[in-house]
Amino acid sequence: MTNYRFEISYDGTRYYGWERQPGKDTIQGKLEAVLSRMTDTEAEIIGAGRTDAGVHARAMIANAHLETALSPEEILAYMNRYLPDDISVNRVGIVSDRFHARYNAAGKLYTYTCYAGASKPVFNRKYVTVLDSVPDIAAMRKAAAHLVGEHDFKAFCSNPKMKKSTVRTVDTIEIIKRKDFIYFDFHGDGFLQNMVRIITGTLLEVGFGRMEPNQVREILEKKDRRLAGPTAPPQGLCLMKVDY
Amino acid sequence: MTNYRFEISYDGTRYYGWERQPGKDTIQGKLEAVLSRMTDTEAEIIGAGRTDAGVHARAMIANAHLETALSPEEILAYMNRYLPDDISVNRVGIVSDRFHARYNAAGKLYTYTCYAGASKPVFNRKYVTVLDSVPDIAAMRKAAAHLVGEHDFKAFCSNPKMKKSTVRTVDTIEIIKRKDFIYFDFHGDGFLQNMVRIITGTLLEVGFGRMEPNQVREILEKKDRRLAGPTAPPQGLCLMKVDY
Repeated sequence: MTNYRFEISYDGTRYYGWERQPGKDTIQGKLEAVLSRMTDTEAEIIGAGRTDAGVHARAMIANAHLETALSPEEILAYMNRYLPDDISVNRVGIVSDRFHARYNAAGKLYTYTCYAGASKPVFNRKYVTVLDSVPDIAAMRKAAAHLVGEHDFKAFCSNPKMKKSTVRTVDTIEIIKRKDFIYFDFHGDGFLQNMVRIITGTLLEVGFGRMEPNQVREILEKKDRRLAGPTAPPQGLCLMKVDY
Repeated sequence: MTNYRFEISYDGTRYYGWERQPGKDTIQGKLEAVLSRMTDTEAEIIGAGRTDAGVHARAMIANAHLETALSPEEILAYMNRYLPDDISVNRVGIVSDRFHARYNAAGKLYTYTCYAGASKPVFNRKYVTVLDSVPDIAAMRKAAAHLVGEHDFKAFCSNPKMKKSTVRTVDTIEIIKRKDFIYFDFHGDGFLQNMVRIITGTLLEVGFGRMEPNQVREILEKKDRRLAGPTAPPQGLCLMKVDY
């Protein structure tokens, strides 16, 4: 068995997220079906993270232990031939047997993209969230500053029964406006379930004046999901990079 | 009645082209339906050109004579609210009564985009044509040079019964390779039916060594559609700009 590392892009629009689920189209499910066919055994692929239904990835990293005579280039060609056209394998490489895409992930970069303009984002309408007006960028940056650093992000987690630690370190939150698009870049050591979307939803509340920037600190301290903003819709979110 | 000028973007994937056709979804049809609703009369919109089924536009120009109390900004907001999310109005302005989007068009820029890489163009898969391998760019440029200038492009027109002149001037054909994408930029005073797609299909024949660059000159001279290459598929084509 050889351990292979994959870099994968996908348009998550029509999928029930990364994680394999019986009877449902998922990214992991599609990848495992192709790898199983290729190796004629039941293949398992481990992703760096589990993206939600409707969320995209430019460079998800995954690994799989496989028995095959094919070279990495041949595996790449085989997978791209049999995968649907909304999932692409960009790289395949051989890694140490001990490499684990999830446990070894040291950091992740997510980008949440919004559009706020008079026209409509025709060509990337599946990858952005359309806003009715332009939020206050300076206010959102102030609010975001409270979230940077090591914190207990329990208030920004959609799983109320989370038993493991909800402490995470967010290194940077950058909010950039370029033409009619607003990009929220989140880099951190890991993110809880829906955390990026709940933070984005909360920052937008601040951006639209429905919440004060300082309230974000209070939400963190009170650790209560109900105090944070709504979960921003999935289509604006994309996993950009995984660090090892 | 006031004459309005529109700049429109659309993803042509699910449309039977620009031109209004009874019982079929077309760009002109969708626009006229919204304008008719807005003005409560039967509105007509004139486009700079008639794109084929499946072809896209970043900046189609159109005009319409309308009776409305709405300002250009309000017309834009109204149209974007009622148009489907694959059609966007980017600008609305008032122009001279004599402005005619088709007759006054002095030039057009079309881009045909191909992808030739080991992975797949997941996020713009609807806007590119995927090639199995990388064509010879230098050979295609040599072939394209024969087409630049004023020529009778009868061999590159899909309408065999074309009664009007098939003489057109193509100012530039630029072929650019950037990463795994190949862009064919065509600028000219006007293009015959399917002309850009037939030229692209012919250049790709040259690029894959199935035709010599010099043969293109012969095809022009013989004026026989059967000698030119196949019509490249519509999804790679986009109208980028119209000059006035």
